[in-house]
Amino acid sequence: MAPPCAIDPSPEVTAITDTAAVTLPDFLAAPIQSNEIGKRRRKAREGQWGIAAPSDTRDFRFRNYEGKPKAKRWDHYFSHEARVRKGNRLKGAAKFLTSKPGIISLGGGLPSSEYFPFEEVSIKVPARGKFSEAETKESGVVITAGKHDLANMKSTYDIATAFNYGQGSGSAQLLRWVTEHTEFVHSPPYQDWQCTLTIGSTSGWDMTLRMMTRPGDCILAEEYTFSAAVETALPLGVRMVGVPIDSDGLIPEAMDDILTNWDVNERGARKPHLLYTIPTGQNPTGATISGPRRRELYNVCQKHDIFIVEDEPYFFLQMQPYTGPNAPDVPPPVNHNEFLKTLVPSFLSMDTDGRVLRMDSFSKVMAPGSRIGWITASEQFIHKYQQYADVSTQNPSGISQLVLFKLLDEHWGHDGYLDWLIHMRMEYTKRRDVILGACEKHLPRSIVSWNPPMAGMFHWMKVDFKQHPDYPQKSIETIEEEIFMRVIDHGALVMRGSWFYASEEDAHDTLFFRATYGAAKADQIEEAVRRFGVAIREEFGLDKEMDEKVNGLITPEG
Amino acid sequence: MAPPCAIDPSPEVTAITDTAAVTLPDFLAAPIQSNEIGKRRRKAREGQWGIAAPSDTRDFRFRNYEGKPKAKRWDHYFSHEARVRKGNRLKGAAKFLTSKPGIISLGGGLPSSEYFPFEEVSIKVPARGKFSEAETKESGVVITAGKHDLANMKSTYDIATAFNYGQGSGSAQLLRWVTEHTEFVHSPPYQDWQCTLTIGSTSGWDMTLRMMTRPGDCILAEEYTFSAAVETALPLGVRMVGVPIDSDGLIPEAMDDILTNWDVNERGARKPHLLYTIPTGQNPTGATISGPRRRELYNVCQKHDIFIVEDEPYFFLQMQPYTGPNAPDVPPPVNHNEFLKTLVPSFLSMDTDGRVLRMDSFSKVMAPGSRIGWITASEQFIHKYQQYADVSTQNPSGISQLVLFKLLDEHWGHDGYLDWLIHMRMEYTKRRDVILGACEKHLPRSIVSWNPPMAGMFHWMKVDFKQHPDYPQKSIETIEEEIFMRVIDHGALVMRGSWFYASEEDAHDTLFFRATYGAAKADQIEEAVRRFGVAIREEFGLDKEMDEKVNGLITPEG
Repeated sequence: MAPPCAIDPSPEVTAITDTAAVTLPDFLAAPIQSNEIGKRRRKAREGQWGIAAPSDTRDFRFRNYEGKPKAKRWDHYFSHEARVRKGNRLKGAAKFLTSKPGIISLGGGLPSSEYFPFEEVSIKVPARGKFSEAETKESGVVITAGKHDLANMKSTYDIATAFNYGQGSGSAQLLRWVTEHTEFVHSPPYQDWQCTLTIGSTSGWDMTLRMMTRPGDCILAEEYTFSAAVETALPLGVRMVGVPIDSDGLIPEAMDDILTNWDVNERGARKPHLLYTIPTGQNPTGATISGPRRRELYNVCQKHDIFIVEDEPYFFLQMQPYTGPNAPDVPPPVNHNEFLKTLVPSFLSMDTDGRVLRMDSFSKVMAPGSRIGWITASEQFIHKYQQYADVSTQNPSGISQLVLFKLLDEHWGHDGYLDWLIHMRMEYTKRRDVILGACEKHLPRSIVSWNPPMAGMFHWMKVDFKQHPDYPQKSIETIEEEIFMRVIDHGALVMRGSWFYASEEDAHDTLFFRATYGAAKADQIEEAVRRFGVAIREEFGLDKEMDEKVNGLITPEG
Repeated sequence: MAPPCAIDPSPEVTAITDTAAVTLPDFLAAPIQSNEIGKRRRKAREGQWGIAAPSDTRDFRFRNYEGKPKAKRWDHYFSHEARVRKGNRLKGAAKFLTSKPGIISLGGGLPSSEYFPFEEVSIKVPARGKFSEAETKESGVVITAGKHDLANMKSTYDIATAFNYGQGSGSAQLLRWVTEHTEFVHSPPYQDWQCTLTIGSTSGWDMTLRMMTRPGDCILAEEYTFSAAVETALPLGVRMVGVPIDSDGLIPEAMDDILTNWDVNERGARKPHLLYTIPTGQNPTGATISGPRRRELYNVCQKHDIFIVEDEPYFFLQMQPYTGPNAPDVPPPVNHNEFLKTLVPSFLSMDTDGRVLRMDSFSKVMAPGSRIGWITASEQFIHKYQQYADVSTQNPSGISQLVLFKLLDEHWGHDGYLDWLIHMRMEYTKRRDVILGACEKHLPRSIVSWNPPMAGMFHWMKVDFKQHPDYPQKSIETIEEEIFMRVIDHGALVMRGSWFYASEEDAHDTLFFRATYGAAKADQIEEAVRRFGVAIREEFGLDKEMDEKVNGLITPEG
C-alpha cells in the first residue's frame, strides 16, 4: 500500500536524541516556528530521565501560555479521599537525592537493575508509510532497547530505567511525547493544563469517580452509554442520568432542561456536577457531536458549573465522509494539516475554564494490551491523580512504556504517528463501508434503520419494535431478548441496546442493537449482517423476497 | 558464575507446547508423580488461550483437594461496593461465543490485531544457570513472540492475543504459571483457593481495602510498616493500629491483648477484622516471622475472626544464615528441595480457613516495571476482585504478560525459575553481608544496634536517642530529623523510622533508620554507611577514634 499522504517514508530513524532536530508534523510549519518542539526538547533537564525520577509535564509544552486564563478552582467537587490524600512519602524522599551532589542513596527500596533478567528488548514494527501487516512482514524495522542505553548515551530511555519503579505520572520520556501530541492536536486554551499517564481509561474513569463524586450522586451521560462506565459508577453509589440524544449525540437543550429543572427531593440527589461523555464515535451509538454543538454543550456546562469528562478512545477513528454504496470514495487527506483540520474540535480545545478532563487511550489506535492511556486536565486534578496513582495503580507497565516510546518517539516520531493515524482512518473507513453496504443489502429497511457512523467502531441499528407481531403484549426488553437469541441461533453475535442504558430505572421506548465493524474480516461482517437480517425477518414475520423487492435489491433478472 | 545448584542448564528450551513434557522441579519427584504438572497441562482447554478468553485458575491446579475443608464465608466483611458490584456485562457476553459453533462476533468492541503495529517482540534473557549481567551479555538467549503464534500453533500465547483486551484475571497463560508455582511452593490446605493476576501489590492492597473495609475502620499492622500501605488506607478513612513487634516481627500475645481488650468507645472504631502484615523481610524492619510464631498468630486470628493480608514481595529474598564477618559462608542449597525447605512457611500454607489473602509480586525478583503481581485467596474474594478489575484496572499489561510468559514458562520453566531464585538468594546474601560488615566497621555500637536481616532488602538500625546530648530537651522526632539532615550533609540518604509509623497518633519511644542494601554497589554501600557513622558520631559528640578502639577495629598498627 502506498503511504497515505505525501511524506518521505525513507529515513528509518531508529534513535532521536534530545539534541537532534526532531522531525515535525508539516502542519506545524505554518502556525509556529518549524522546530518548536525540537527547541523545547533541547532545554530538557537530564535528571528527569532517571529511575523513578519526578518530571513535570509543563516542561514539555512548547507554546507560550502567558496571558491565557488559569483554570477555575474545583476544590468544591473533590471527594473527601481526594482532599485528604497526601503524597507518597518515600517517593517524596527522592528530592533529597538532588540536594547534594555525590549523595549515595540507601533510601528507596528499589532493586538494582543488575537483577532484571532482561538484556535487550526488540520489537519489529512497520516502517513509516508501510503500515499493513503484509508490508511489515516484508519491510518492518527492528528497534532495540538495551539495558543501559541511558548510561551509555544511546537513548534517553532503557531497560534499567523502564523496568524499575516509576512515578504515578508515568515516565518523563513517554509523558513528554503525549504532552507534545496533546498540545499540537488540541492546543488547550488555558494556562495550567497538564497531562499524566494512566493505566488505561477504565481505571482513569474509576479513579476520577472516586476523586470527584460521593455516594448518592447523580451524574450526566448520553442516555445510551458505555456499560462498563455505568458498572464502574454504580457500586460507588453513583447513578447516571441519561441525557436525550439524537443522531448527532447529546442535545444541549435537553441537558439544560434536566439541570434547570432538577428537583433534589424528587431525584434524591444533589444537582449533577459532572458530565461523562464519549463525544466522538460514541459507544454504543456511534454518534459524533459536531463542533458547534460541542460549544453549545460547553456553554450549558458553564451555566450549571458542570465538570466534563470527555472519554475519547475513538477520536482518531474519525473516518472519511460516507458516500453511499455506488459513489466514489473520498480521497485521503493530502497532508497532516488537512488531516488535523478534518477532526472535530475536542472539548479540551475550547476549554477556557479548565473544566474538561480528557481521557485519551492507545487502545484503539495502537494496542489495548499496552494498558496505557493519558489524562489531560488542570494541574489541580493532575496533581491529585498522581498522588492517588502513587499509592494505587502506580505507573503503567514500564515494559509497555518502553515499547511505545521506542516506536512513537524514536522510530516514527510525531509525524510518522500522524501517518499511522491516517492509515487507521482509511482502514476504518473501508470497514465502516463494508458494514453499511451489508446492511443496505441484507436488512429490511421497513424494520431496521440507522445513521452512517462518522467515527469509532460501532454501528447502531434501530429496530421498530412496534411492528413486532407480539407488541404490545411483550415488552421491549422481551422482544429484544428474543431477537438477540434468534440472531445467536443463526450464528451471529450483536450487543443488545438495553445493555447500554445509562439508567436502567428510566423507561425506554427505543430498541437498538450494536454491531462492531472493528474486529471481523469483511466477508465475515457481511455474513453476520446477513444472519442478523434473517433473524429479524423471522422475528417480524417478514417475507424476505417481498421485502427485498420493496427495497429494490432484487433486480428483474433475479 | 557456576549455576547455583546441580541442574543441567544446557537445553535451551524456547517453546514448551502444552503437549510436551514439562520439566519439573526436582523436589516434586518425591511427593507427587514426576510430571504431575505436565499431566494437568495436557488436559488444558484450548478455548482459554484466545483473545480476552475467560479462564479458571482451578483448571491449573494439579493436586486433588477432595476431603479438604472449604473456606469459611467472609460475606460479613465485604464492603458495600464489593457486595453490589456485578460483572462486566460486555465481557460476560463472551460466553455466547462458545454456545454456537461458527458464530461470528460483531459483539465486543475489540480492535483487530491487524492494526497492532507490532510484528514481533524479542527479549534477550539469561540462559538457565548463567544469570549474571556479564554472562547474559555473553551467553544470553533471544526468545521471540510473533504476532500470530497461536494461530500458527507455535505457542499458546502471541502478540495478537496479549496485545488485545483481556480479562480481570489476567491471561490464562500467565495465570496458569503463577497458579502452579503457588501450588507447589505453598500447597494451600483448603479446597477453594484460587489465584488472580494483579497490576502490582500496591493496587492489590488499594482494591482489597475498598472491598474489605469501610470508613472509620481500624486494621492491624506491624507498629512500623510500609508507609505507602498506610497512605493507601488513610484517605479511605481506615486507620492502622500498630501491633508491637520484636526482632522476630509481630508478637502474638500483644496482638491478642489488643483484640481482647478492644474498647469500641475509646477507640472510636469497631474491633479490627483485618491484619496487614509483611511477614518476611518486613519493610522497614527487615524482620521475618518464624514458622511457629506464624502459627501462633494464625491461632490468634482464628480466635478473633481476623482476615489476614500477607504482603510478600520479599518472600524469595530469604537469605543464607548470617555467619558474621570472619566465618565462612554457608554453601548454597544443593537442590530445589533443599532450597524450598529453607523457606519459612507462609500464612497461606497453614490456612485451613481461607482467611489469608496472599499478595505475591514480581517486583523484587524480576522487575518492578512489569507491574504484575498476583493474589491467592478463597474463590469468594478472587471472584469479587476480578469483577472489580474488569471495571477498573483491567488486566496487567499484555506486553508485560507476554514477556514474563516467554521467559518463565517457555524458556526457564518452573525449575529454571527456582534456579534464578537461588541465584537471587545468594546475591542478596552477599549484599546483606556487605552492609553488616560496613556497620560493624563504621558504626558506634554504643549508640547504634541492629539484628542481621534474614530476608528482604532492608537493614533497620536502632539509635539510642537517650544518649543524645540534647535529650530530653529535644523530642525523638527532632533528634531524628537532625540526624537525618546531617547524614544528607555527609552525602548519604537513609530513611527515617518515623516515616513508617503504622499510626502517627500513637506515642513512640524508639528511633530507627532504614537502609537498603538492594540497590547501591558494594563499595557505595560501605561508603554510605561510613558517612552515616560520621554523622551519628558528630550528633552524639563521640570521639571517633576512642569508639573504634572500644570496638576493637583499630589495630595496634593503625
